[in-house]
Amino acid sequence: MIDGLNKSGRKLHPENTIIQLGDTLIGNGNLTIIGGPCSVESEEQIIEIAKEIKKSGANILRGGAFKPRTSPYDFQGKKADGLKLLSLAKKETGLPIVSEIVALHHIDLFDDVDILQVGARNMQNFELLKELGKSKKPVLLKRGFSNTLKEFLYSAEYIMSNGNENVILCERGIRTFETWTRNTLDLSAVPLLKEISHLPVIVDPSHATGISSLVEPMSLAAVSSGADGIMIEVHNCPEKALSDGAQSIKPDAFRKIIEKSMKIKEIL
Amino acid sequence: MIDGLNKSGRKLHPENTIIQLGDTLIGNGNLTIIGGPCSVESEEQIIEIAKEIKKSGANILRGGAFKPRTSPYDFQGKKADGLKLLSLAKKETGLPIVSEIVALHHIDLFDDVDILQVGARNMQNFELLKELGKSKKPVLLKRGFSNTLKEFLYSAEYIMSNGNENVILCERGIRTFETWTRNTLDLSAVPLLKEISHLPVIVDPSHATGISSLVEPMSLAAVSSGADGIMIEVHNCPEKALSDGAQSIKPDAFRKIIEKSMKIKEIL
Amino acid sequence: MIDGLNKSGRKLHPENTIIQLGDTLIGNGNLTIIGGPCSVESEEQIIEIAKEIKKSGANILRGGAFKPRTSPYDFQGKKADGLKLLSLAKKETGLPIVSEIVALHHIDLFDDVDILQVGARNMQNFELLKELGKSKKPVLLKRGFSNTLKEFLYSAEYIMSNGNENVILCERGIRTFETWTRNTLDLSAVPLLKEISHLPVIVDPSHATGISSLVEPMSLAAVSSGADGIMIEVHNCPEKALSDGAQSIKPDAFRKIIEKSMKIKEIL
Amino acid sequence: MIDGLNKSGRKLHPENTIIQLGDTLIGNGNLTIIGGPCSVESEEQIIEIAKEIKKSGANILRGGAFKPRTSPYDFQGKKADGLKLLSLAKKETGLPIVSEIVALHHIDLFDDVDILQVGARNMQNFELLKELGKSKKPVLLKRGFSNTLKEFLYSAEYIMSNGNENVILCERGIRTFETWTRNTLDLSAVPLLKEISHLPVIVDPSHATGISSLVEPMSLAAVSSGADGIMIEVHNCPEKALSDGAQSIKPDAFRKIIEKSMKIKEIL
Repeated sequence: MIDGLNKSGRKLHPENTIIQLGDTLIGNGNLTIIGGPCSVESEEQIIEIAKEIKKSGANILRGGAFKPRTSPYDFQGKKADGLKLLSLAKKETGLPIVSEIVALHHIDLFDDVDILQVGARNMQNFELLKELGKSKKPVLLKRGFSNTLKEFLYSAEYIMSNGNENVILCERGIRTFETWTRNTLDLSAVPLLKEISHLPVIVDPSHATGISSLVEPMSLAAVSSGADGIMIEVHNCPEKALSDGAQSIKPDAFRKIIEKSMKIKEIL
Repeated sequence: MIDGLNKSGRKLHPENTIIQLGDTLIGNGNLTIIGGPCSVESEEQIIEIAKEIKKSGANILRGGAFKPRTSPYDFQGKKADGLKLLSLAKKETGLPIVSEIVALHHIDLFDDVDILQVGARNMQNFELLKELGKSKKPVLLKRGFSNTLKEFLYSAEYIMSNGNENVILCERGIRTFETWTRNTLDLSAVPLLKEISHLPVIVDPSHATGISSLVEPMSLAAVSSGADGIMIEVHNCPEKALSDGAQSIKPDAFRKIIEKSMKIKEIL
Repeated sequence: MIDGLNKSGRKLHPENTIIQLGDTLIGNGNLTIIGGPCSVESEEQIIEIAKEIKKSGANILRGGAFKPRTSPYDFQGKKADGLKLLSLAKKETGLPIVSEIVALHHIDLFDDVDILQVGARNMQNFELLKELGKSKKPVLLKRGFSNTLKEFLYSAEYIMSNGNENVILCERGIRTFETWTRNTLDLSAVPLLKEISHLPVIVDPSHATGISSLVEPMSLAAVSSGADGIMIEVHNCPEKALSDGAQSIKPDAFRKIIEKSMKIKEIL
Repeated sequence: MIDGLNKSGRKLHPENTIIQLGDTLIGNGNLTIIGGPCSVESEEQIIEIAKEIKKSGANILRGGAFKPRTSPYDFQGKKADGLKLLSLAKKETGLPIVSEIVALHHIDLFDDVDILQVGARNMQNFELLKELGKSKKPVLLKRGFSNTLKEFLYSAEYIMSNGNENVILCERGIRTFETWTRNTLDLSAVPLLKEISHLPVIVDPSHATGISSLVEPMSLAAVSSGADGIMIEVHNCPEKALSDGAQSIKPDAFRKIIEKSMKIKEIL
């Protein structure tokens, strides 16, 4: 179907990639659950949420510290301070953490971060990808909201061909004409990517839909489509969230999603 | 969220619509399985497939007799003869049948057809919709491949406001920039439509993806997202199909999808 | 580039098609100007506008009588009465008239209409196209808002292969992710269609943009891109129009567009 | 229409921005012509093309040195060496030069470059934009191929709010479902951007269409739509170009476009 997938394609690498973080295995039929707030807001907030999601069965804590926002006048995240708060939550709960990196010169601030996230807007920031290729840390690469699967895999290839083969692909919705949802979650990407590539594929239903009531059905649909994991925005107080409150769910709802997901995973 | 959904919206009609065809109930938590070939090709073909899908647990037989094709020089279906063959298969198996109607003056040919299908390209053929509103038969309305959910519901409203409230909505993929799949299956449409409307919502993963290996994962994903049914192209000999062979699956694969779907439905 | 364009392609028909209506020649380097209201509203309205646009130099009067609207509860046009009013305006000014036909059984009502328009939503209503292929009248075929140029030409082919070679193609904007304009006017369609096909290509900047201040620049751009004509919504009182007022311009603005268009045409 | 355009909007800055480079004025009704190859390939190539386009009446020379390519295995440009060759061409012809910058740490290499280009893929690389906001050099900001006009202006705002108000907006085609053209040139963006913003708006018909025969009609259409300039790929030997040969035109064709453009500009 496609040439030049020397590293990410199944042709030269038929067996599934597995990425290990402590006890957590990502890929190859394991179901990884990532939860946490859109933005790290305060010590109290992030630690409370981290404890809650751990109790619910999550494997990894997410939290945005550097937030790329469409307008320069919107809240841009707590930056270095946000990363320090994430570290506290990690120490408190033992959960590995994932956070978005937006510029290479920030790399030292991410020492304690376990997975480096590349956001949708930077999926074709090739200079960033090449540098992350020199890192040893797993990279969670989000699909650009208007990028084809071919471009997505080539971006993984930018990281891998520079030396870092620990790439996790994340489908998070694409831009279409439909306006009722924030983006259109392209779940057919999951089985198709897994056919062509050996990399783990996870799904972010929160950013894709932008509507909290859709998070459960689309999470379960993602698991059914064969996803290796789901990444969900969880907030202890969605109505007061500094960003993306409308798509965040509470820890309770999160727990139910995990329970049902595990049952579905067994059927598959 | 939207005005003018006098008939299709939940506001004035909170309880789920249920459509009954013999023993088959469509909507309200029942899982309806529709299977059959893209096109009716011969008596032998349609009867063999009908028997196979019945054995697998399907509720309804689909088969195209009038085929709207992009080019006038492509196979346009067996037309009236195709409908007669469908009738034979119905008599043989007892399965209700659904087939696409493309012009009002064909209506008499559809006497024995149980569900009238409106194809994606005719979703905004309002003259056809208005006339189907005067029929008593259930209408399976496919979402246009570039129509918003708002337009989709307004098209249902065209049928319902003319007197026929038995409308089944069908998501079948939308047109996006992605080229590896035929269309992009928009599964978030399922829970969103069900939030706003009381009508049954089914999913067609075959036309949406155009790739047979994606039919199982996307069928299961559809069920997980809350769909009231799935409509799948099943062919006894996909490699020889006169249309859409690449997306058809064999009866065996179809049976496995039904089994897994039923188990998932229980979890939900 | 494309097979099966037996009638619409240049391969078997290298010279440009010219369609004649009285003194007006459409195609082959002539610049045809079509103006008029979105909907015919009253005798006074349509006759006043017809006179105004004639004075400005328009060749053809447009006016909607049957209006396909997204919601069944929106104004659907004055129907047969609207066509009668158009006839009066034709008699009064001598301008040929174009109006949209939405169902074949209306054909007798269109006796006095010079050009039958197929709207964007019916571009793939193949049953309608086939029947119009049996007519002798020129057909103005609008591009569906989500149809590729390939599909557009195949739809022309449906008309032409049924016997009517007098087809005028009309680009009127496509559906994209951009929301500030109603649709995205795809002007590159103009030179590309004219490379592949010998049919006249005109542009409708009013529906495409939905914003009256964009009508002049996009009209001039259309002419510069090689269009054989432009079709513009002109209303004597846009703020009181029953439909599409926001994109209508006044006769004065219309006249200026024609003057500049003619000068640009000379340069090309 | 939009909040937060403190710097780029007309509200607080009604008069048009004019950017001066030697004798060349960009914006406010001047028509700026930028030409040159997709990639700088050799001293001979770039100097020959620079001389040719100068003779044709171009104001600015373009040439890619750092080339962001979808696949890591494709030609990535001559990088620093390419910039040195551009400098030679500038010295030889006196033409100011524009070239794409993809990473902030390259900035010193761009000392002799007059306009820093931000490519479509980096339109929302906010870290890059913020840093370019601290530069004094004009920035040519290309619209991302799937970004709305609102996002486009907010990205300009990222540069301007950091101190650099010399931003040139460039429409270069958006990603749609149409596949015959590389992208869909959105010319309605031109008058709309100029209504809302005081910044110069130029158009790149070469990347937008990807087809050399469309460059002239779309250039003229751009000028007619009100563009302050056009940026065209010109190559002395398109069939041997290392990148984007299919959309490059020869110096002769380029000269004709300039001549016709100037005449159209007079009419407007």
